[in-house]
Amino acid sequence: MRQTIPVQECPGGVTAARGFVAGGRYCGIRKMKKDLAIVASEVPAVTAAVFTLNKTQAAPILVDKIQLSRSETCSAVVINSGNANACTGERGLNDAWEMVRTTAAAMALPEEQVMISSTGVIGQYLPMDRMIVGIPQLAAQLSASGNHDAAEAIMTTDTHSKETAVQFSLGESMVTIGGMAKGSGMIAPNMATILAFVTTDASIRRSLLQKALARANKRSFNRITVDGDMSTNDMALVLANGAARNKPFSENSEEFQLFCAALEYVMIKLAKMIARDGEGATKLIEIFVKGARNEEEAAQAARSVANSNLVKTALHGCDANWGRIMAAVGYSGIDMDPELVEIRFNGLPVLNQHYSIVLDEEKAERELAKEEVLVTIDLNQGTHTARFWTCDLTKEYIHINASYRS
Amino acid sequence: MRQTIPVQECPGGVTAARGFVAGGRYCGIRKMKKDLAIVASEVPAVTAAVFTLNKTQAAPILVDKIQLSRSETCSAVVINSGNANACTGERGLNDAWEMVRTTAAAMALPEEQVMISSTGVIGQYLPMDRMIVGIPQLAAQLSASGNHDAAEAIMTTDTHSKETAVQFSLGESMVTIGGMAKGSGMIAPNMATILAFVTTDASIRRSLLQKALARANKRSFNRITVDGDMSTNDMALVLANGAARNKPFSENSEEFQLFCAALEYVMIKLAKMIARDGEGATKLIEIFVKGARNEEEAAQAARSVANSNLVKTALHGCDANWGRIMAAVGYSGIDMDPELVEIRFNGLPVLNQHYSIVLDEEKAERELAKEEVLVTIDLNQGTHTARFWTCDLTKEYIHINASYRS
Repeated sequence: MRQTIPVQECPGGVTAARGFVAGGRYCGIRKMKKDLAIVASEVPAVTAAVFTLNKTQAAPILVDKIQLSRSETCSAVVINSGNANACTGERGLNDAWEMVRTTAAAMALPEEQVMISSTGVIGQYLPMDRMIVGIPQLAAQLSASGNHDAAEAIMTTDTHSKETAVQFSLGESMVTIGGMAKGSGMIAPNMATILAFVTTDASIRRSLLQKALARANKRSFNRITVDGDMSTNDMALVLANGAARNKPFSENSEEFQLFCAALEYVMIKLAKMIARDGEGATKLIEIFVKGARNEEEAAQAARSVANSNLVKTALHGCDANWGRIMAAVGYSGIDMDPELVEIRFNGLPVLNQHYSIVLDEEKAERELAKEEVLVTIDLNQGTHTARFWTCDLTKEYIHINASYRS
Repeated sequence: MRQTIPVQECPGGVTAARGFVAGGRYCGIRKMKKDLAIVASEVPAVTAAVFTLNKTQAAPILVDKIQLSRSETCSAVVINSGNANACTGERGLNDAWEMVRTTAAAMALPEEQVMISSTGVIGQYLPMDRMIVGIPQLAAQLSASGNHDAAEAIMTTDTHSKETAVQFSLGESMVTIGGMAKGSGMIAPNMATILAFVTTDASIRRSLLQKALARANKRSFNRITVDGDMSTNDMALVLANGAARNKPFSENSEEFQLFCAALEYVMIKLAKMIARDGEGATKLIEIFVKGARNEEEAAQAARSVANSNLVKTALHGCDANWGRIMAAVGYSGIDMDPELVEIRFNGLPVLNQHYSIVLDEEKAERELAKEEVLVTIDLNQGTHTARFWTCDLTKEYIHINASYRS
């Protein structure tokens, strides 16, 4: 589906859509790296969000949930890296609110127009003295070309920044959706945190924006795994400021379907960038389960394979170990008949039905040595599919995550 | 509980109990290593078993389930390493039945008195020509001192064999329970397979033996994880031949409670040996969750922490990263209040309630450098507990599991 929607990729990331500005700078939380970002809309933007389901939720998550209940719109999001403000109790909550107030004051906004986000070390307090200075400095620097600085400022152990944007026609209007994300892994003490910020100039009701986000999130950020660890700070946020002046549309319209598809396109693109940049990764692995009785079972099987350390180490070693894939599908919890399963690597048949092994080890090794590996698993018991993205598991992952905090 | 039960450890493993013989030898499945074992009882022994829940089940599992339905007792178990006879379809099933027939013929037993087990490479056929020769040779060698050879013959990537036994008074009789196990990891292509064989001279009804096994299994082999991958071949088997001539007992008796506790002691001991010997492991990690509202939730939280790659790499690096532990408890799915959680390493307080951090980094590092690390997590919301055992995640794990099959 995402191959056929009429969207055009364009530059600009989180400021590609009209009416958005952004910026990123160093304010003293990390060591000599940009650590503070702001994304802002010239007019209040309708806002939707999804948050981590972890019971241990960082202070900014708790604050944002209150902000969303106070206002349907948001004008600025301030994000810091280097410190997650998680497991910081009462003081962390006070610090989070101070981030809100400082940003609101610097940008002359009502407090309820500000959302916040943090990623980094957990269990440490934010250096509020530096942030109180840094936030107004950054607020004065925002521009329509600040997208890249912002994308850099939210990075932690990411090896490169992650941005994308698309344009498409919605009725008679040209609409843009752009976004930035940070991936899976943090400066020690590490937590796999996913943050994503998406902006669009579409005019859309909040209830529809939230539905579109939830649907796209299910098929993007909820379909990637690096190590199966869910963070205390994960969140994805979408701001829609209406600057494209498209006509209002309803949930049953073609326009809404198109908007959903474009949002899913952007979010899947960001999600794949995160998976490819997983800690220690050398390749992007796509697990494509087809022939399932429904999408939930397809996703469950794909998740099980994508989370398997044994599968991920085998693919790292270019070992066509289809047995580990069979085992991971087998313990995924779905009802399936192993005799019907077929497995392909980048289209190369490895296992046909009834355990008919058609593996050519040399050819398979050549496919697995590529930077992108598509593992297709056909359950042959229905018509539904699901995709999951992950990366290989390497010694470098252990190296990054076993190191001391410093 | 397991510290206070009146059992005495003794040598002899799977032949410690009266009336059992065993042996192990090389028959040509593996390269120059013992690969075939038999455990036998002089008289038919009441048999109970638990099997992998993986939907992809190896041929011997399918055969054993039929055998258990044909007879309440079993006289011999034949086990091979080096080949799992999994994902081998119709031919694999025929081979499995031939293992049964060959063993029955060699030992002059009815076919329904034989159980089988396999562990090793999956997707390859057993070398039946060699097994047909090897099984009768081994059957002629069984002895009451063959326990160690048997324990060696079931090893795959295990670095050492795993045996234990205990004696205890049951009424006026002295009863022995002994066992052997193999652990988590197999020669390439690897599958984390757990096999355990326990023998006892207790006289016990099959229904009670099955209950005792299920209960002990829940707190032993179901409480260890090396990489979270569940094998197609996992099984635990208990044979009870009645040679101790203890008086019959009922489910509500003290005797049954004592038998259950002793069986749990043996199985936990074997389970811990497996976790400690996990692929690439340098230390045994015990996750002890207390203060839970019920045992299920305690186990769920402990499993989540034990399965976390981030926790296991941190402990490998002696990094007192309690934040990752909090996160893993948080996403375990249980209802909990993170503010109430307390964490200790080998008894050393690290985190008190309300995120009060009491971590002394140097002292913590010293505790985490030990060969056994006890991570205590107090949820402070009830009185129930659960233990889980795992090992650290190391570069050596990647090395073992990324290598080519050869």
